[in-house]
Amino acid sequence: AHVPYSPRRYSEESMLQRSTDFYRLMNQRRSVRFLSPEPVPRDVIDRVVHTAGTAPSGAHTEPWTFVVVSDPEMKHRIRLIVEEEEEVNYRQRMGDKWVQDLARLRTNWIKEYLDVAPYLILIFKQTYGILPNGKKKTHYYNEISVSISCGILLAALQNVGLVTVTSTPLNCGPQLRLLLNRPANEKLLMLLPVGYPAADATVPDLKRKNVEDIMVHV
Amino acid sequence: AHVPYSPRRYSEESMLQRSTDFYRLMNQRRSVRFLSPEPVPRDVIDRVVHTAGTAPSGAHTEPWTFVVVSDPEMKHRIRLIVEEEEEVNYRQRMGDKWVQDLARLRTNWIKEYLDVAPYLILIFKQTYGILPNGKKKTHYYNEISVSISCGILLAALQNVGLVTVTSTPLNCGPQLRLLLNRPANEKLLMLLPVGYPAADATVPDLKRKNVEDIMVHV
Ligand SMILES: Cc1cc2nc3c(=O)[nH]c(=O)nc-3n(C[C@H](O)[C@H](O)[C@H](O)COP(=O)(O)O)c2cc1C
Ligand SMILES: Cc1cc2nc3c(=O)[nH]c(=O)nc-3n(C[C@H](O)[C@H](O)[C@H](O)COP(=O)(O)O)c2cc1C
Repeated sequence: AHVPYSPRRYSEESMLQRSTDFYRLMNQRRSVRFLSPEPVPRDVIDRVVHTAGTAPSGAHTEPWTFVVVSDPEMKHRIRLIVEEEEEVNYRQRMGDKWVQDLARLRTNWIKEYLDVAPYLILIFKQTYGILPNGKKKTHYYNEISVSISCGILLAALQNVGLVTVTSTPLNCGPQLRLLLNRPANEKLLMLLPVGYPAADATVPDLKRKNVEDIMVHV
Repeated sequence: AHVPYSPRRYSEESMLQRSTDFYRLMNQRRSVRFLSPEPVPRDVIDRVVHTAGTAPSGAHTEPWTFVVVSDPEMKHRIRLIVEEEEEVNYRQRMGDKWVQDLARLRTNWIKEYLDVAPYLILIFKQTYGILPNGKKKTHYYNEISVSISCGILLAALQNVGLVTVTSTPLNCGPQLRLLLNRPANEKLLMLLPVGYPAADATVPDLKRKNVEDIMVHV
């Protein structure tokens, strides 16, 4: 069944103001790799994850699972797995060019934030679903859908003054899936440490492209 | 060089309020397939695209191009390409199950909104970049980065009361790339018609999962 849809409408003036305000808010977002251990209200995290769950998804499959880790021992085990794989990535698997690209960002295989952040959000994509009759159900475009949902999650974090760094831990997926007891249809897509920035947090001095360099009018 | 980063900090009370407000705003988002032809201020669209450009990207590659089409003839040519491919998709390429899944959403290969919407935003991912010396530069995780940026774009649209339907036109990428004169390193990822909803717009009566069904605390 279809139902009528008439969302709130704003005046043109108000649209301009709102789009500018939201641009400014989002433009302040940065990937932060130095987090504070201060606690963050769990209700805020729940609301942020719930917001991510409003994303569109191919054929409305909602193919996402957000595992929110606050247990210190579990965070530490995750850190050990990630650092072990990342060291191999840096030393052997990545090309020299990749390592150079990352040097600019001063990222390496030491991930202290995995212990320090009050929350780690591990985002799994469900590559297929299970129907009531036990058969597999394809999840079209699951990776795109989950990445869109991650974009909405980042906006929701930014909106409450929390920070994260979007990371895609290479080769850690299978171990982390087993550690966290996730089913075989779930694959790790992203790992986001979440909290307040450390008091002395710094970020690489990057510039973003101008709007003319990313947009073409036809 | 690294620079200090200390974003705005909110009280816990204010974080809760802001996270709830943003959840409510985003939860009102729906994919709308019936758009109004009313004009939309171009500055708002530019601001929304600029906001999408604040997304994180693997190794800061910013691998996105947003082609904003408002020219009626170009919109119509896009429609012809999409409908032709979509009809073949529905009749031949998709499995019966997929067609059944989509029947629930009442989507088919007729895409009137491609003529009607004041803007079509075609989102291209840059699969590689070109260095000053002419060599190719890998864009790690370009599809994930561009999809995250699309999530932020959807949030920015919702924030100003505009609607869209996220679509991934199957097999139309190469033709649309040529039509729009985009270089060989760019591949079409998403096509979003953007505007106000039609006065009599309807949406499928879908429910979203509860937060307990998408989130696990550890
Ligand atoms: C990656 C992706 C591809 C999609 N492709 C199409 C499409 O080709 N045609 C369409 O009508 N809807 C498409 N959708 C929209 C979904 O059907 C829609 O998001 C889903 O039914 C949930 O509805 P909602 O967005 O209103 O919450 C797509 C969504 C995503 C995320
Ligand atoms: C898909 C993706 C993967 C990323 N992987 C990592 C990562 O493994 N480690 C890291 O420190 N940063 C990672 N980043 C963050 C980028 O380096 C960062 O977004 C980019 O440098 C731009 O900086 P900004 O987010 O502060 O704007 C990733 C970002 C994306 C979108």
